[in-house]
Amino acid sequence: MPVPLIKESDVDVLIIGAGPAGLMCAMALSHAGVNVRIIDQRAVNLAAGQADGIQPRIIEVFQVTMVDVSDFDGFLMSLFTSLQSYGLASRLFKEAVQVHMAAFYNPSPNGGIERTDRAADVTAPTARYAFEMALHQGGIEQIFLDSMATKGVHVERPLMPTSIELSQDEAVLKDPTSHPAKVVLKRLDVSEGKPDTEIVYAKYVVGCDGAHSWIRKEFNITMEGEQTDYIWGVLDLIPDTDFPDIRNRCAIHSHNGSCMIIPREGDMVRLYIQLADKDVVDSKGRVDKSKVGPEKIMEVANKSLYPYTISTSHPIDWWTLYIIGQRVANRYSVHERVLIAGDACHTHSPKAGQGMNASMNDTHNLAWKLAHVLRGWADISLLKTYESERRKYAQELIEFDKRFAALFSGKPRTEGNDEGVSHEEFLGTFQTFGLFTSGIGVHYQPSAIVHTQHQSFASKLIIGQRMLPHIFIRAADSQPVELHDLIPSDTRFKVLVFTGDTTDTTQLDHVRALAEDMNGPQRFLKKFGHGNTSGVFEVLSISSAKKRYSNYTDVPPLFRSHWSKFLLDDCDMYNRSGGGGYEAYGIDPRGAVVIVRPDGYVGMVAPFDNLDDLDEYFAAFMVPTPPSA
Amino acid sequence: MPVPLIKESDVDVLIIGAGPAGLMCAMALSHAGVNVRIIDQRAVNLAAGQADGIQPRIIEVFQVTMVDVSDFDGFLMSLFTSLQSYGLASRLFKEAVQVHMAAFYNPSPNGGIERTDRAADVTAPTARYAFEMALHQGGIEQIFLDSMATKGVHVERPLMPTSIELSQDEAVLKDPTSHPAKVVLKRLDVSEGKPDTEIVYAKYVVGCDGAHSWIRKEFNITMEGEQTDYIWGVLDLIPDTDFPDIRNRCAIHSHNGSCMIIPREGDMVRLYIQLADKDVVDSKGRVDKSKVGPEKIMEVANKSLYPYTISTSHPIDWWTLYIIGQRVANRYSVHERVLIAGDACHTHSPKAGQGMNASMNDTHNLAWKLAHVLRGWADISLLKTYESERRKYAQELIEFDKRFAALFSGKPRTEGNDEGVSHEEFLGTFQTFGLFTSGIGVHYQPSAIVHTQHQSFASKLIIGQRMLPHIFIRAADSQPVELHDLIPSDTRFKVLVFTGDTTDTTQLDHVRALAEDMNGPQRFLKKFGHGNTSGVFEVLSISSAKKRYSNYTDVPPLFRSHWSKFLLDDCDMYNRSGGGGYEAYGIDPRGAVVIVRPDGYVGMVAPFDNLDDLDEYFAAFMVPTPPSA
Repeated sequence: MPVPLIKESDVDVLIIGAGPAGLMCAMALSHAGVNVRIIDQRAVNLAAGQADGIQPRIIEVFQVTMVDVSDFDGFLMSLFTSLQSYGLASRLFKEAVQVHMAAFYNPSPNGGIERTDRAADVTAPTARYAFEMALHQGGIEQIFLDSMATKGVHVERPLMPTSIELSQDEAVLKDPTSHPAKVVLKRLDVSEGKPDTEIVYAKYVVGCDGAHSWIRKEFNITMEGEQTDYIWGVLDLIPDTDFPDIRNRCAIHSHNGSCMIIPREGDMVRLYIQLADKDVVDSKGRVDKSKVGPEKIMEVANKSLYPYTISTSHPIDWWTLYIIGQRVANRYSVHERVLIAGDACHTHSPKAGQGMNASMNDTHNLAWKLAHVLRGWADISLLKTYESERRKYAQELIEFDKRFAALFSGKPRTEGNDEGVSHEEFLGTFQTFGLFTSGIGVHYQPSAIVHTQHQSFASKLIIGQRMLPHIFIRAADSQPVELHDLIPSDTRFKVLVFTGDTTDTTQLDHVRALAEDMNGPQRFLKKFGHGNTSGVFEVLSISSAKKRYSNYTDVPPLFRSHWSKFLLDDCDMYNRSGGGGYEAYGIDPRGAVVIVRPDGYVGMVAPFDNLDDLDEYFAAFMVPTPPSA
Repeated sequence: MPVPLIKESDVDVLIIGAGPAGLMCAMALSHAGVNVRIIDQRAVNLAAGQADGIQPRIIEVFQVTMVDVSDFDGFLMSLFTSLQSYGLASRLFKEAVQVHMAAFYNPSPNGGIERTDRAADVTAPTARYAFEMALHQGGIEQIFLDSMATKGVHVERPLMPTSIELSQDEAVLKDPTSHPAKVVLKRLDVSEGKPDTEIVYAKYVVGCDGAHSWIRKEFNITMEGEQTDYIWGVLDLIPDTDFPDIRNRCAIHSHNGSCMIIPREGDMVRLYIQLADKDVVDSKGRVDKSKVGPEKIMEVANKSLYPYTISTSHPIDWWTLYIIGQRVANRYSVHERVLIAGDACHTHSPKAGQGMNASMNDTHNLAWKLAHVLRGWADISLLKTYESERRKYAQELIEFDKRFAALFSGKPRTEGNDEGVSHEEFLGTFQTFGLFTSGIGVHYQPSAIVHTQHQSFASKLIIGQRMLPHIFIRAADSQPVELHDLIPSDTRFKVLVFTGDTTDTTQLDHVRALAEDMNGPQRFLKKFGHGNTSGVFEVLSISSAKKRYSNYTDVPPLFRSHWSKFLLDDCDMYNRSGGGGYEAYGIDPRGAVVIVRPDGYVGMVAPFDNLDDLDEYFAAFMVPTPPSA
């Protein structure tokens, strides 16, 4: 029988493009048990170079990632015995370098450059990991690939989409069981007798196909913004140098142009070197990449770093040229059935280390929403919050990026140039920008999943921002645990019950009454629990009582489904960690219920006596449990 | 050709017995590149039960273990990018449970028991990990087995020694190249046509063959000490209970006998239940194990825990009975060629969680000494310090153990029993004992490798005790690093140069003079460096200067062979760790050189102007570099 040359298939989510955005998406969906495929037209994944900055919020995300509800028992067994080492962050800590210090150099009156100042590389006082990390993009991608592989999901490559059609029928688009997208894929390494074309019918298509996105063009999504004239050379090398800040991030303004240094894993370093137009522009004003190579970039670097010198006795690992462009797509989705993410919807100046981080955060925001909709837990309208949250962030980021890039590429202030950029101005922008680029400052506006009432009951857990990390003590065994580790990205909403002082009998009565109320059949836990409340919601309780006098059996069973789920705001036995959590979170002494979204953002706060508002929060986007379940 | 039935072979070190002592020894020697074999007569290794306590010092040892000089570049690459996750401790953190809190129960005036007090489970304020861990012995053994396997070393089993002879010829015994021990091994799973007997000629034999050691008996080494009359039942179970301290270590004195509870990995718990003679002793006064099973132990447990109840809906994982015996071997070595370690030379009450820890610490002490002697770096007399250090520790431990066991098995003080053990007396002994059992309090006496002069130059780094952990900041990149992670068990001596304030030019002159002096051809680095100084010695420098003003290029190259080797006594960018190290170590502001032995113990302290004493320290046991090297 002849082999058919065209194959047809169905899938729930088809991801196009296996860069950081696509891989984060595929990894998260694979762990959520979603029927997902990911394709890429490149035959192999990256080995060196490209984006490499890893910002504080993404380290947090890596740390709480790779957890799914079906694995939860296994996960618990491991978590309960571990402070640090689950999730994907342990791979980062093994393979990536940490960047703690930034150094600022400016023109010296004696010629050459001199150090003006040093400061923290990261401005993000609440970050769990208050430093930046760096690892080549291929290393980061491998972490995702290995994690997905444990769920049997692999990148199919080299595979190229050749056409995409989306149904225009509103009824089809609104039917959660429909497959409205038809995508034709072409295999690029056809072997004899195998089909080289496949038609895939997908419920959702996620375009993570980069700055020149094919999906974006197919749907006439346009990029808004412009390119600047600044031209930069980038290279990765193992340096021989007498420059004393070579292992710090450096922002260097010289008479000869600006440079940035970013330490890399091992002894490697990345240099960003500003190039003059004359070096790279041809007679018609266009960039001519043949005019510049790594030798030329090193020559400019040595002029800019004078009186220090830099050279290498190793081969150059990777190099490129780029022109800064800052643009955002005018929309992120087509009927919430085709969505774009990552470089496909925003491009930045690479020096902020933002491209890859914003890309991974895009699909970290999207993946749990897709999982909820596909499971029938949430209405498809939930997906609208993906564009509203992530596009606004990209726009804000780019506004900052423009300011920062202009300051950085601009001339420094010197005796002869009063108009130049002063160190104070530069440092101030670096730090303001840093809070933003760290990812820690991301703030989602009110929406179906961000309800800002009752903020005062947890005044420092800003609704719409990510949950603050803090170390608490488990009541049962006094082991310190980081709250972030207890609210992993496992697609569940986290219900954090701040009980107040459970050794106070009056307060304990309120806690018991709350448990009884929350356990009622019309309350959100049961109403939206789809017959599997602990699969949709994770309930943890945190008391302000002290460890010496508390028993884990103090709170009602709803608030401690396992002995590990009741925490205390107290320090460990040697006062090395923990304590002060109620104050850091601004918890009202009467107690509060805090809802943390599956992606780690605070969605809602409620006082004990207003569970109605909590019910309403979930009713805004969740589908009630069908009567049969 | 017929297969010969007797095989003959040579080996540098033959280890007999693959329990924790033998495996720690084989693991350490395999990573040191030593020609080592390890045999065991059991066909498979343990799956459940047995010893399980992991004390603070052993966690420290695990953390700095599995590093060898040949791997050092790879190790560096990983270390420089990692705060926590190298060595074997990360496996413990994943698989073992942590025990932070101890609870003390005593008879209640109303009948049954009540909680008297809670306190830290571990009394060891300087411990890097100030808690106890627990994991079944098979799990711990697997960590060693996996680590050895990376070096191609596996336990050969089932293989039994049937005879051992040691040469009596003094010249042979003193010749470092001789193989004076002849051991006959018999394979217990003979397959047709394969040799079932092997004669092994070994340079060194290490007997880790347990409490009933065959090696010990072959050489007429006797055990000193006695058994008590206390009989205990032990079982591991997943409990159903209303006892509020079930996840803490509990010491329970009841009218019905004493109990101890130790939390185990996952939801498992270990119970130690004191049994009455009538339950276990036959008419002739001998223990009759057939009289007691897990049901009987559970029945006694419920009487002792009243008014709380404990039961299980799972199968009992493991159980046993034991009688406390506290004994120490009268010697640990025969001509430094046959050595015994672990249970072969000391037995304790298991409740102190000491058997396994002391055993692993025995061979942690021994392995680097064997490696130095076998490489020709050290004289064979170095091995004498194994017995002098470890036997004295075992004797001290047993003295404490006797006191503690008597208090714990004794009747509690109650209204009707003024003679009983008071809580205050018990807690005091628990805490004194705790400093000792944690391993942190181990103090080796002056010897060839412990020279106590110049203590005042590092007044709190007690010579003969393990190096204190502390977090410093790398000068080059401000990354916080735990000093313990920089002084791994890689068989090298660590030369820690506390430079004083290197931003003070006068002090910097002293530091430069020191470097010049230390680099001289007659100084220990070259004299005992065997043509490979960085393979024998690791030099690190630590300045009291601050990160904002220091460059890693400030100190002479001898004190920073790589940018990562110059540290500062300062805190990180967010004041979360580091700082105060000079004070914590009691470093003289004029500076000091501290020698840390390969096993992590402080061997010597010297002022800058007395390198002669450092040379003498190493001359006491090291062999000078031959003129040809």
